[in-house]
This record gives sequence, C-alpha cells and structure tokens, in this order.
Amino acid sequence: MDFQMSPKGQDFLKRVKAFMKEEVYPIEEAYYRELHSLDNRWVVLPIIRELKQKAKAQGLWNMFLPEEEHGGAGLSNADYAVIAEETGRVFFAPELFNCNAPDTGNMEVLVKYGSEEQKKQWLEPLLAGEIRSAFCMTEPDVASSDATNMKATATIEGDEVVLNGRKWWSTGIGHPDCKVLIFMGLTNPEAHRHQQHSMVLVPKDTPGVKVERMLRVFGDYDEPAGHGEVSFTNVRLPKSAIIKGPGKGFEIAQGRLGPGRVHHCMRAIGAAERVLEQLIQRALSREAFGRPLAKLGGNPDIIANARMSIEQARLLTLKTAWLLDTKGILGALSEVSQIKAVVPSMLCTIVDQAIQIHGGGGVSDDFPLASAYGYARSLRLADGPDEVHRALVAKLELNKHRKR
Amino acid sequence: MDFQMSPKGQDFLKRVKAFMKEEVYPIEEAYYRELHSLDNRWVVLPIIRELKQKAKAQGLWNMFLPEEEHGGAGLSNADYAVIAEETGRVFFAPELFNCNAPDTGNMEVLVKYGSEEQKKQWLEPLLAGEIRSAFCMTEPDVASSDATNMKATATIEGDEVVLNGRKWWSTGIGHPDCKVLIFMGLTNPEAHRHQQHSMVLVPKDTPGVKVERMLRVFGDYDEPAGHGEVSFTNVRLPKSAIIKGPGKGFEIAQGRLGPGRVHHCMRAIGAAERVLEQLIQRALSREAFGRPLAKLGGNPDIIANARMSIEQARLLTLKTAWLLDTKGILGALSEVSQIKAVVPSMLCTIVDQAIQIHGGGGVSDDFPLASAYGYARSLRLADGPDEVHRALVAKLELNKHRKR
Amino acid sequence: MDFQMSPKGQDFLKRVKAFMKEEVYPIEEAYYRELHSLDNRWVVLPIIRELKQKAKAQGLWNMFLPEEEHGGAGLSNADYAVIAEETGRVFFAPELFNCNAPDTGNMEVLVKYGSEEQKKQWLEPLLAGEIRSAFCMTEPDVASSDATNMKATATIEGDEVVLNGRKWWSTGIGHPDCKVLIFMGLTNPEAHRHQQHSMVLVPKDTPGVKVERMLRVFGDYDEPAGHGEVSFTNVRLPKSAIIKGPGKGFEIAQGRLGPGRVHHCMRAIGAAERVLEQLIQRALSREAFGRPLAKLGGNPDIIANARMSIEQARLLTLKTAWLLDTKGILGALSEVSQIKAVVPSMLCTIVDQAIQIHGGGGVSDDFPLASAYGYARSLRLADGPDEVHRALVAKLELNKHRKR
Amino acid sequence: MDFQMSPKGQDFLKRVKAFMKEEVYPIEEAYYRELHSLDNRWVVLPIIRELKQKAKAQGLWNMFLPEEEHGGAGLSNADYAVIAEETGRVFFAPELFNCNAPDTGNMEVLVKYGSEEQKKQWLEPLLAGEIRSAFCMTEPDVASSDATNMKATATIEGDEVVLNGRKWWSTGIGHPDCKVLIFMGLTNPEAHRHQQHSMVLVPKDTPGVKVERMLRVFGDYDEPAGHGEVSFTNVRLPKSAIIKGPGKGFEIAQGRLGPGRVHHCMRAIGAAERVLEQLIQRALSREAFGRPLAKLGGNPDIIANARMSIEQARLLTLKTAWLLDTKGILGALSEVSQIKAVVPSMLCTIVDQAIQIHGGGGVSDDFPLASAYGYARSLRLADGPDEVHRALVAKLELNKHRKR
Repeated sequence: MDFQMSPKGQDFLKRVKAFMKEEVYPIEEAYYRELHSLDNRWVVLPIIRELKQKAKAQGLWNMFLPEEEHGGAGLSNADYAVIAEETGRVFFAPELFNCNAPDTGNMEVLVKYGSEEQKKQWLEPLLAGEIRSAFCMTEPDVASSDATNMKATATIEGDEVVLNGRKWWSTGIGHPDCKVLIFMGLTNPEAHRHQQHSMVLVPKDTPGVKVERMLRVFGDYDEPAGHGEVSFTNVRLPKSAIIKGPGKGFEIAQGRLGPGRVHHCMRAIGAAERVLEQLIQRALSREAFGRPLAKLGGNPDIIANARMSIEQARLLTLKTAWLLDTKGILGALSEVSQIKAVVPSMLCTIVDQAIQIHGGGGVSDDFPLASAYGYARSLRLADGPDEVHRALVAKLELNKHRKR
Repeated sequence: MDFQMSPKGQDFLKRVKAFMKEEVYPIEEAYYRELHSLDNRWVVLPIIRELKQKAKAQGLWNMFLPEEEHGGAGLSNADYAVIAEETGRVFFAPELFNCNAPDTGNMEVLVKYGSEEQKKQWLEPLLAGEIRSAFCMTEPDVASSDATNMKATATIEGDEVVLNGRKWWSTGIGHPDCKVLIFMGLTNPEAHRHQQHSMVLVPKDTPGVKVERMLRVFGDYDEPAGHGEVSFTNVRLPKSAIIKGPGKGFEIAQGRLGPGRVHHCMRAIGAAERVLEQLIQRALSREAFGRPLAKLGGNPDIIANARMSIEQARLLTLKTAWLLDTKGILGALSEVSQIKAVVPSMLCTIVDQAIQIHGGGGVSDDFPLASAYGYARSLRLADGPDEVHRALVAKLELNKHRKR
Repeated sequence: MDFQMSPKGQDFLKRVKAFMKEEVYPIEEAYYRELHSLDNRWVVLPIIRELKQKAKAQGLWNMFLPEEEHGGAGLSNADYAVIAEETGRVFFAPELFNCNAPDTGNMEVLVKYGSEEQKKQWLEPLLAGEIRSAFCMTEPDVASSDATNMKATATIEGDEVVLNGRKWWSTGIGHPDCKVLIFMGLTNPEAHRHQQHSMVLVPKDTPGVKVERMLRVFGDYDEPAGHGEVSFTNVRLPKSAIIKGPGKGFEIAQGRLGPGRVHHCMRAIGAAERVLEQLIQRALSREAFGRPLAKLGGNPDIIANARMSIEQARLLTLKTAWLLDTKGILGALSEVSQIKAVVPSMLCTIVDQAIQIHGGGGVSDDFPLASAYGYARSLRLADGPDEVHRALVAKLELNKHRKR
Repeated sequence: MDFQMSPKGQDFLKRVKAFMKEEVYPIEEAYYRELHSLDNRWVVLPIIRELKQKAKAQGLWNMFLPEEEHGGAGLSNADYAVIAEETGRVFFAPELFNCNAPDTGNMEVLVKYGSEEQKKQWLEPLLAGEIRSAFCMTEPDVASSDATNMKATATIEGDEVVLNGRKWWSTGIGHPDCKVLIFMGLTNPEAHRHQQHSMVLVPKDTPGVKVERMLRVFGDYDEPAGHGEVSFTNVRLPKSAIIKGPGKGFEIAQGRLGPGRVHHCMRAIGAAERVLEQLIQRALSREAFGRPLAKLGGNPDIIANARMSIEQARLLTLKTAWLLDTKGILGALSEVSQIKAVVPSMLCTIVDQAIQIHGGGGVSDDFPLASAYGYARSLRLADGPDEVHRALVAKLELNKHRKR
C-alpha cells in the first residue's frame, strides 16, 4: 500500500500549489470585488486571461487529461485528483489550468469518441483554452434523475439530425467564450433503452438554439460561466455532428462520468479544506463567555468531525480514482456513485457549520460561505441526486448476494 | 388538558385564514413578480397598503398585543401563536396585520416600558401601521452571542445621551416607512453586568445615524424591509429618549424576547407547513423509475419525519406561549430557549429536503425554497444562535439537580 | 388551551408520586438484588404482592381504565398518560398499580368486546390483579410488521375453534400468575383482508399450548414476566372463546392499540426522565480535565437536546391521548403512529448518551442503563417497527393532498 | 498511489481467508452452542486449542508482530490491518492466530520495552500461545478518560515495587490461561505529568491480587476471556517487574496504543462487513407488503450508507496503519484518534440497523446481533471514549493554525 502520489504527480502538485500561492490567492478578493462592481458580469476579466497564459506557459495545463498525445499531462486519475483538490480551493482556479467543468468532460468525450473532424473543429480550441463549451442534458419538465424520462429529441432526417426540446442547468453557457454545446436527445425510442439517445455537437449560434434565461443558485448567477435554460427548436445539423453515431449517447455518458465525478468530488474536498480553515480561523479569533469560540461547547467536536469526514471522503475519492486507473469505469461503478453521494453532502455540512461559527456574517456576502453553500448544495443534485447514487450503491451491494 | 384555542382565538383564526385565502395567496406570485421587476425594490407596493387597510378594517390588526387598551386584540399568547403560524405561511403576510418583526417587539417595549411622551410619539403611529421601526443590537466586530461583548456606547452627558458604535442585522431599516430605531448601548461599565446598558429611541434621521449598507442573506436583500449595517457617530439625543431610564437595557431586552421568540417560532412553523405542502405536491406530481417521487425510497420517511417534527415543535411552542400567559417570562425561560433552538433548525431541515425533492429547480428562483432556506438559516443565528440557547437550557437543567 | 391535568388527574398524580417516593424508589435496588440472587427468577417476590395490596387499598388501581363501572378510575386518557409516565420511572412499578402491559390492553379488549361469560371468567380476576395474561400475535417465521403475513390459524370446526401455529414475543407469559393468552390467527382467508382473523381467549394450560422457550432481550430475560415463544398444536376450544366472534381480530386489534401505544410511550418518557436524571447526576459527580463532565465539550448540548426531545415527545403523546379522548381512535390514527415512531427512538438516544457519560460502568450491570437500552431498543420493534409507523404517517399525509 | 497489499501480505491474506472458510465459519455455530451449554463457560474448548495448533503449523501466527526476529510474520502494519479485518469477522478467531487483544498489545510492549528476563519469562510463552495476559489500567472510581485521574499506586520501597488500587475492564483476566497482568500505577506524583506512572508485570497469582468479579457487557460475560474488576492490595514485586523502569508508564502506553487501535478498528471493520452481510441476507429473505425488505422504503439507503461508511472507515484505518509504518506514532497521532472515534461508532450504527431489519429476532439470542452491539458499544468507551479522541483531533487541528 502506498498513499503517496507518484513523483511526477508530486512535482505537478508542488507547482500548482506554488501557482495558487503566488498568483491566485493574492488576487482572489480583488477579482470578486472587481467582478461584482460590474453591471455586466458575463465577462472574462483580463487577470483571468493573463493567469491562463501563465499557467499554460508553466505546463500547468490540461492536467485532467491522461493522454499526452492530446496535450494532456500524462497524470493518472489518482495523481490528478490531488491536484484537482488543490484547484478546488478557489472557485475560479480550475479554469486557469483549463481544468474546469464541463469543459474537461466535454474534452474527454471528444478525445475518446470524437471523429477527426470533430476533434479538429472543437477539441483543439478547447484544449487550447480558446473557447468554452456546455453540456445540455437535464430537462426542466421531467425528473431528470431518471435519465429515461428525457423528452428532448435528436431525430434523424436524411443526412441531418434535428434537435427539439428544452434543457436547463447547462453550466458554462453564459460564458462569453462558450461556442459549442453537447446536446443529448432521444433518437430511437424503439431501440434498447441504453441505445435510444444520441449526443450531438451544436455550435451555440446555430439557428433554433436559444438561451432562454440564466438560472440563479441560492441567489448567485455564478458569472461569468453561469447555468442556463436553453430551448432547441428545429435545430438542424449534419449527421456528422453526432458523436460516435446515433444511439451512442448513454455509452458516452457512462464513459464521461467516472473521471468527471472524481474531479467534482476532489474540487469539493479542496473547498471543504478551505472552508474548514476559515471556520477554524474565525473560531480562534472570536471570543464569547471568556473563551475563543474554538474551545466553546461542541465546537471542538465540530472541528474534529470535519477533519474526520474530509479525510475519509478524500481517501474514498482517491481510491475511486485509482480504481478508474487500474480497473476502468466498470471496476469502479459503485465507488463513483459512493463518492458522489458522500462528498457533496460532507461539504454542505462543513459549510453550514462554518456559517454558524461566523454568526450573522456567515449568511451575508462578507464571507464566501453563503455562496459556497449554494455551490455545495447544488452539487447534491448535479450529475444525479444523492438518492440515485445511493440507490445504485445499494443495488450493486444486493447483487453481490444474489450471485452467491 | 385542552389543546384547542379559546372561542375568541378560534374566531380570529378563522377570519385570518379567510383573509389569507381570499386576499393573500391569490396575489402572492404577482406581488413577487412585480417587486422583482423593479430597479428599486425598497418600496411598498400599493397592494400592500391596500391589504393593510382591509385587514385593519376587519379588526385583524395588532393581534400580537394582548392589551386591548392599547389597541391590541386581547388574545392570549397561546391563541395569538396559532394565528402567527397562519401568517407565517407567506413571507410578507405578517406586515398586513401589523404583526411583523421587529415592530411587534418594539411596540411591546413601548407599551410596557415607554413614557407617555414616547408612546405618543412612536407607539401610536406604529400601532396605526403608519411608520416602521428597527432594532439595533448585534454588532459586527464582536461575537454578539455573548451580549456582554457589546461595544457600542450610550453615554450620558448632562441632559443628553450620546450614541457611538456600529450595529448590523438591523432588520427593517431599509423600509421606506422606517422612522425610528431602538439602539442598545453601554452606559455604565461599572454597574452590575445586567445594569450597564441602555435602550434609546433614535429617530432614523438624527444626525450621525448612517445606514452604511444593506446586507444580503444567501443572496437576498429581503426588500423592502431588509437588514442594515448602521453606524452611530456622536448621535446626540435628549435623555428622555432613553427607555425606562439608563441601565435598564437588559431588563427590557429580557421582557421583549419571550413573546417575540414565540412569534418567530410560530411563523417559522407556518413556513414549515407551507414548505411541506410544496414538498408533497412536487413529490406527488413528478415520476421517476415508474413511481411518483412521494413513494420512492426514503421519501415517505422524509415526509413522516417532517410531520412529526413539525407537530412536536408546534406543541412545544404553544406550551411555551401558555407558560408565558400563565407564569410569565420567568416561568418559561428554559422553554423560550428550547423553541429557539428547536424550531429554526427543524425548518432548515424541511426546506432542505424540499429543495432536494425539487431537484435543480429547488436551488433556483423558480421555487421559493432557496429564499426560504436563507430565512430559515438566518433564524438559527438571529436572537441568539442555537448554541447559546442550548447552553441556557443545559444550565437550567443542571440547576435543578444542584438545588436538590 | 390548557396544558394542565384535570383536578382529579392532579390528585391521582400526587398520590402516585407519593407512593413512588415512599414505597417504590426505596426498595428498588433491594428488589433487583434479591431477584438477581435467585436461581429461579420466575417468581413474584413478596414485596410486590405487598405493594400491590397497598396501591389497591389506596385506590391507585386500574387507573388506565376510563370506565368506572368496570373498576376503572374514571380518568381520561390524557390524565392517565401523565400517571403512566410517573409509573414508567421504575420498570416494575406499573404492575403495582395493575397498570402493566399487556394486561392493560387485554383488559381493555375484554371491557369493550368481551362476552359476559368472558368478562366473568377473565376480566374480573385480571382487574383484581389475581391473574396475569399474555398476547400472542407476532410470529417468528414471517415479517410480522406486515400483519397480513400472519400464518397461525384459528379454524372453525363445528362448535369449536382449533388453533395452530407458532408465536413469539408473547410478553408476560413467563409470569407465574399468567393464566390466559389472547391468540390471534387466520380464520377465513377468503374474507376481506381485515375480516380474516380472530382473537381467541386461551387458558394457558389448554392441551397443545407449549411455551417453547423464553427469549432474552440484549441478554435479559426480564423475569418474572419475560417474553416467550409459544407453539399451538391443535389447541381446541369452544367457539365461545372467540372474542366478539370470528373475523373480528383486526377490528379488535385496532381498538386495542390506541391507548396501549399512549401508555407504552408515556412509560418510555418516564424512563427517559429517569435516565436523564442519572446522566446528569453522573455528569455532575465525575471530573475529567479539571471540570465536571457536565460542563465538558458537547455534554451540555447532549443534556439540552435530551430535555428538548423529551418535552416535545411528551407533548405529542399527551395531545394524542387528548385526541383519543375527544375524537376517538379514528381521529388519532396518524398521531398514534407518530408517537410510536418518535418516543422509543428518543429513549434509545438518551439511554445511549447516559451510557457514554457513565463510561465503562454504563455497559455493565452496575447501572440500570444497559438493561434500559434493551427495553428501549425492543420498543422500536414491538407493536410495529418504526418503519411501519412512519409509512402510515406518510400515507395519511399524502392522502390529505390527494383529496384536494 | 497503490491501494493494494504487498505480495507477501496478499499471500497471508489468502491463507487466512482459506483458514477462516475451511476451519472457522463451519464450526462457529457449534462452538457457541457448546460453550453456552456449559455451566462453567470459563474454559477453552478443545476445538480452540486444536485450531490454534493448525494455524500455528501453517505459519498463520503472530502476524500482528512486524519483527521477524521475535517470531513475528514480518508484515507491515498496513498489510496486517487487512488480515486483522478478516479475523474480526468471527469474535473468537483472532485468538486462533495468537492475534487477540490485549495479548497483542502486551507482547508489543515486551518486544519494545521488556528486559531480557521479562521477555524470557513472559514474552516467549505469550508468543507461543501458551499463556494469556491482561492489561489493568482503567479504574472504577474515577473518570479514566482523563488518565491523570488515575489513583492506583506503584510505590517504590527499596528493591520492591508495591501495588495498591482497584482496576476494572481488565479484559482477558477470566481466561483460564491468563497468567500475567500489566498494571499501571502512580509512582512519583512530583514528576512531570507524563513521567509519574509505571507499568509493572504482575503474575496473576501474586498475593494481594484479587479478581473481585467479572463484568457483564450488555448482559454478556464474553467468556472465556471476560472483563474483570481486580483489586491490588499491597502487592509486592521486585523492582525488576517494572517495565523499562519507574515513570515510563505513559511513554510505553503511547507506543502501545498506535498499532493496537489500528487492530481494534480493523477487527471492528471486519465485524461490520459480517453484520452487513447478515443484514442484507435477512433483507433479501423476508417479505412485507409484497416486496423483500431490501427494497422497502429507506432500507436501500441504509445498505448504501453502510457500504459507504465501511469503505471510508477502512481506508482511513489503512492509511493510519501506513502512517505508522512510514512515519511512526508521532506522524499518526491525529489519525490514530480519528479511527478510534470513527470506527466503533460506525459499527454501532450498522449493528443497530441490522437489528432493526431482523425485527424481534434482532434483540434476541437467535442472531449474534445483540451481542455484537455490546461489543461495538463498549468499543466506543474502551481505550478512551470517543469524546477524548475527538478532543485530541480538534486540538491537533487547532495547533496547525496557531503555528502559522
């Protein structure tokens, strides 16, 4: 057993930490102050473009992508996971390294399943960080926790595929650089239930694509990326826009989700560590009844429980990454769902306790906690609600016993 | 034992319910739509003034106030509690009946402790619903959970009292009708620790009073009442502005808080019932995996637990109100803290579960849940955080055994 | 609203408290010491018979029974509930007042549904405290949480009813005075699902009745009453042994369970109060790290939470009793299940925390906590597991919305 | 990163699993039946001695001990941890491999700190499995969670050390082969607080040593090892009986506890896996309301949560073992306390849920669950209660921030 990163991973981690320390933390507060002072926040501030160039120049770029031949860093999932945690400590940091959702997942899809033409057109500028993308799957009118509820259609008509339907929670669609969407829709309702859907690459400016509105999460638009509701009305594209061919949507979704969930969870763990630091610093710096809050009543237990739940969640996520590395997605099905059920909920709890320790300040904008709560809370729903993941874990558990 | 309201209380409840059904629910959605469409939301929409007139005309006015000689409805705390629950189902409803915080608490203070002059100047227009008020106690720079940390001063200089300091979470201070603040500050640091502070009536336009900014709660300003941060710089007032005289601040605060906490808690229980209705309606109307969410997995348990925790919290709050009626605040010290620790936390849990059942919609603005969460979450801090109330309950419990 | 007992109830309570103080607490420890010193603990110690006589002489007898014409005390369910709490503070106390399960439920069944002959033969000696009884419903071979799983049969053959099957958790069957069992079995599988079963009065010495073994609960036999597994093999009785006639089993069970569950819950609340006293006394008397345990870390929160959960559970149970008094069982269906889901679980939590505060002593026989835990834990299963009660509460909640 | 055991560890694990499958599970039920049929259960059944010989012959012996020169297996803590989990699946299995507490900890102490003479006299027969030992630290009269409360004395008088005091929870002292105790007592109250105590090797038959009684845990004596209360009255031994010299007690305790806690926790994880299997098998085999319990209501969530909490607890414990291997006890202080706070509590929860799914059977002796609960519950107190471990974790966490 060895709980350390590889030497290569350690080297990357060291450099990412240095970058965070020298370039990111020092500008964090100013970044938000400037962004929030704007009437239109759907913009990329110059500092972001500048830091992206710096990170790229240092080779801290596309670290999420194992494949070196595509410009990836050649890191294992397990090694990258630790780096993802580090970048998760600042909400806007992953983008600086071209490692932010949903672009990472979309790039992976193109690497694995894209045609040469699709790669040339979309993967290259995405890998270069020149454009951004969105993923359009969840629908407002049905319980999307059950993917078979999906109503949007991707109908084949001759040489074309025609998209209709309404999607929401398309994260990143508000970004000024967002140029392409991956749309998932029903192509053949007669086929086997996992072969009915297709994924289609849709240039954002295609006629019939309309961003109806941007959605707030607990009061935040999360500009400049944001989350949109998008309507698709007779959107016509050549069949070559379909990824891997009609009916392959579920197969691709499956492959996309393993590493993506590890990344989400590790970033959430980074956020949890950051929030725990804030909790402790506040608890050490405020006094009531003659003692620092950190020593008062149940507060030490809160701190200890936070430490213990972060440690456990991290180890489970690292092991899941290692399973993806060594056994592939089919060897990590239960674990991928386990971390998705465990980590966001753990983060919610810790943010909530940090809010409580901050008193009234905790629910205000004076601290990043209320907005961290919005992020944490929505993670319990994004990519499948906790309930769906627990149900899968239970099912796989029962299967072990049925086989016997 | 009798768990029913008095006939008089039942009559009021019946009429309040009718008012809610006929006047309030039907305009709720339109009210928010209109308010949210405004650039400046710090206004009272005409429908609010109209409904206030209607409620007043029907005698559904100042029901929180037991004293009929002051225009109160002559209801016991226990009877009014049930009515407060009803008004708590819509966030802006309490104001329609002139029964909203912090005006209710401020009016009580004036009824009990105000001079004739103070009553004439401030109590009468408050009772008439012509002006609004705020309460300035919590401070940004100290852990206000320990009231003895308070730093703001109310210094006696000759015939004047001079106020200095900074307060925040002054709810209602953004309201266009807000004309008067009750300020609590340190007058005599040498006195017994419960006789050091004074409460002072401060016209909002007094020189030296400055609303520095309005605070957001989980992204909401809660316009038009809002929560402000207010600085007091050499604010000079005649000594007659002090309520009941110098050093009486804690005595007044004590008397103010009993009924106020019952009101807060009963409104929160009304909110919890409303949210549970929304949870159930969503759970009945959405399907996944072939069944309505209401029947899926642990959801029935969530519904049952919500019902059981609401019922229990309500009974505890009603009993507390009854103790205030029959034994006064000193006979209900533990219970007043018990409900403050139990009810907001219960509401948080139910809102959170309603969010989960609403999926992505739950964290957005499409449902009133994210904003209900902000309200619920801040109630766990307002008027003393949970921790302080639990500590008091524990202390009183230990005292029982020490006496033996 | 009035949270006080009636004057009559108060008088009874005062006298029961005095009896507990003067007669019961002083002999509690010696009682157990003597009982545990015996090789055969399935005996009634003389002190018990003596105290029963004293209680009876003072009119503190059959207080659970509202009907005065049958020797009941004429107390409402709500009044008796408070008395049941008092008796629940000592495990063997209810029997002293002839108010112990399952005899109370069995007496109620006979009062409401028994023939004159059945009353004469069994009700009279039970009311006199001369004999004891058991109730045989749960079966070892099926999930008895679903009553329709029941396999035991009560077949009508001519003028006789013939019983076959196996029951367990027949509480009280080990008592030397136990003379009669109420057996529930399937009579007519063709009938409507709530008219298939019959309840039959079975003298314990009827041929074919065999107590196969006594069951331990977390290591305790709960002598001398105990819990038995009983086989019924071609047990033949005249049809007149059937209560209210064939097929009435469910109807009777329904009527039996309302007050019975209130009694169980109130006794459990009495036990919770007692355990909380023990917790606090230990926490005040032991020191670690220079402070009494009562002041250390999260312990004050534990004490406060215990107080708050007991108060809430008690109020819910009292309201349920009041609903039974004023609206009958059909007006209290949800509440009866609510208390059954809430109270035993609350007691488990408090006992568990008392164990923790007692350290190693808590799990040993030196304190009554491990055995209280066994009692509390089994209450979460007896009379329907928590899950079944929550499911009913949820179902009734959903029904409210479907009707609209 | 690598989550696999070393090849050597894998080989041992494979062989231990085979031994468990072929030799242990098949006799488990019969072993308990036979033991429980005895009047005197304080005996070693022949099957145990036989299996010990078999295990020893296969080299599955003293695997807990890294040092090969002392007859250990040369396994790292991390490798042995996985094996300890396996042996934890059957309560009496660890002894078969000479890997049971408290002998393992006592042997480690002797390996690390014992004199040659002490090793010859006690370590050799312990390593050979010929004798058993006990550890006497906790005291009945003080809160032993604070070790400085300890009252027992080990006074130096000339060439002798004289022991006085009373200890309890001396596990293993009832075993017929128990020949030696390690006693910890106060030697020099004037010294630095961590240099006041000594550990002394006490032959069980030394005059003045008296096993006052054996203690039950939730009704079980855990024969034949058991837990005793022991008085020491002027027990005189030569100074050479002191381990490492006077005042070294805390230093030794510190070194003893790291691996010991890993072993405890891994065995508890093995128990949790076993109980989860029993839970699932019952849940699949019983039906209610037309479905197996495994699919009903919140039961799948219970199964998923159990899986997720076991996985996380295991990884944390393995990482702790790896830290002990790579950084020593001082590099794992927080983690050792973390696992001690996390694992027993996790086991309690899973056993409790298994009990609930087993219905009435769960609290009886028909399943090993009530007794597993007693074991799990007492682990939350043994070797420091949860509270003490959480307090240490919190303290170390706060220290990180103070240093900055």
